[in-house]
Amino acid sequence: MTEIDPIVGELSEAQVLEAILRQIGPSSAEIGPGDDAAVLAAPGERIVATVDTLVHGPDFRLAWSGGYDLGWKSAAVNLADIAAMGARPTSLLVALAMPDTTPLSFVTALAAGLRAGCEALAPGCAVEGGDLTVSDTLTIAVTALGVLDGVRPVRRDGARPGDVVAIAGETGLAARGLGILFDRFRDAAGAPVPVDIAALRPGEADAITAQLRPTPPIGLGPVAARAGATAMMDVSDGLALDARRMATASAVTIDLASASIGGDVSAALAGGEDHALLATFPPGVPLPPGFHEIGAVGPAHAGEPLHVDGRAFDQRAGWDPYQDWDSARG
Amino acid sequence: MTEIDPIVGELSEAQVLEAILRQIGPSSAEIGPGDDAAVLAAPGERIVATVDTLVHGPDFRLAWSGGYDLGWKSAAVNLADIAAMGARPTSLLVALAMPDTTPLSFVTALAAGLRAGCEALAPGCAVEGGDLTVSDTLTIAVTALGVLDGVRPVRRDGARPGDVVAIAGETGLAARGLGILFDRFRDAAGAPVPVDIAALRPGEADAITAQLRPTPPIGLGPVAARAGATAMMDVSDGLALDARRMATASAVTIDLASASIGGDVSAALAGGEDHALLATFPPGVPLPPGFHEIGAVGPAHAGEPLHVDGRAFDQRAGWDPYQDWDSARG
Repeated sequence: MTEIDPIVGELSEAQVLEAILRQIGPSSAEIGPGDDAAVLAAPGERIVATVDTLVHGPDFRLAWSGGYDLGWKSAAVNLADIAAMGARPTSLLVALAMPDTTPLSFVTALAAGLRAGCEALAPGCAVEGGDLTVSDTLTIAVTALGVLDGVRPVRRDGARPGDVVAIAGETGLAARGLGILFDRFRDAAGAPVPVDIAALRPGEADAITAQLRPTPPIGLGPVAARAGATAMMDVSDGLALDARRMATASAVTIDLASASIGGDVSAALAGGEDHALLATFPPGVPLPPGFHEIGAVGPAHAGEPLHVDGRAFDQRAGWDPYQDWDSARG
Repeated sequence: MTEIDPIVGELSEAQVLEAILRQIGPSSAEIGPGDDAAVLAAPGERIVATVDTLVHGPDFRLAWSGGYDLGWKSAAVNLADIAAMGARPTSLLVALAMPDTTPLSFVTALAAGLRAGCEALAPGCAVEGGDLTVSDTLTIAVTALGVLDGVRPVRRDGARPGDVVAIAGETGLAARGLGILFDRFRDAAGAPVPVDIAALRPGEADAITAQLRPTPPIGLGPVAARAGATAMMDVSDGLALDARRMATASAVTIDLASASIGGDVSAALAGGEDHALLATFPPGVPLPPGFHEIGAVGPAHAGEPLHVDGRAFDQRAGWDPYQDWDSARG
């Protein structure tokens, strides 16, 4: 017997929701999915909140990313923003806008990926609410909430001259994966085609997995906060662009040592989406396990706030959605 | 001199963000817009959270709705979900996905509408974070957060036999406005055209305003909770569909008295988007000012859980995104 996979246009919103709720599992919230709003615990009387959106086209291609990948990634990128404040993620709200031709199996895979991403990266965090609507463009907007467990939130503007610059997590691997997808898995007209796993060389599968299902070190965010991190952010747009943002916000100079970055330095500087945690620590503070030193903070001076190996690094590198995306070119 | 109105594709994300931040005004949060995540107060150690999305096409048409209208409406619909739990809205996070051809003036008008909607409907609530990305389909996903100020959250499943059914706010007016737009402000091919204000008959402008910039009674949510409401929800998909949801969730029958609903009863039953607050109160409890009685709760029985004037009301009425939206028909 053939498995029936309806499209969402053949179902009611309630039926689609029911299929999603089966995947995301039981809620531990005071009021979870199903009412007008969720009611969530906020110990310490503070909540950390962020939202990030994945859009078909600029942010992903369905030929390359399945529903499970997209659920995982949309969780991971938001969990990383919570971790980058030093907080522990507790809940996600997921706004899913999709064409009415979307197969239900895609939606349930997305829900399973959200759950798996939370379980792997931030155990205890779960989907507690959301919204379903129809759209010509598949769009996944995830709100993540987190709690501080008594630590002081770590801003991006707190780096001070003399601090050590450190990083936890991959840098450049997701960008390498994206490069492989764009270089090798498109047809003659440039349209994405599914990955042929048999055609991958050693290491390439890991890079593609890093792009499709990133694994930022979420648990190290609170660890860095407790260790005294003075500034922290997640690297979503490339180490160069994000380190420059941190230096500018903190009114300091950040000098990165390319030899310490490791791997493909130019991919690390230009490529985001690994969502590594970039942090600064006061001099003499032992770096928490998982972080390694990649540079130093110096005083502000006129001109470029980012240096690499002691020289101003003013290359424009990194992703800007309004300048870098061309829907015709793709 | 001509005012220059760039499109967002001519600007960096930082420039677009700066223009938005100028409109939304200063933040009173511990950490507001500009970092990886916002840090917000959650007195009482609980937070109420919801997300709702407006999508170009199914949810609005740019020929009818300007940026200011959309900002206002995207705030209002989310504030209503917070109010429907008995909570007081405190913060919004706004994920905006838009074509790179979007004029900056549209974006700043949207930000101004978000601010104005908050100021008018939920003073003290403000935009504290968000996300900007590019998309072929203009999409506005708003997360609203709120606090309970010591009241018990009001679920939709708490209605009990003997309770009084009451409502606060408009019912059917936004649907009437939508009807006017669809009937009278489309071209020969069915495409929306801007409203000609001179062509409106008495009362029609109010109905269109109710559709484009709804004014749900947000402050009455906490008032109803304090008065002892046993169940509450906002009417987003029509009184019939939402009252039936409440009856089903509560395992009761709800019987509405059409003469008490007032105005255009069939528009009220079938038309949502006014975001009135539907609530049930124990018998004998004085209804808070702003609420009026529209029916009674009875015991569950086999069959249709919604009655109108004592008879089962099983008409399918109300908005379901996957069944009701046809992108070709519009």
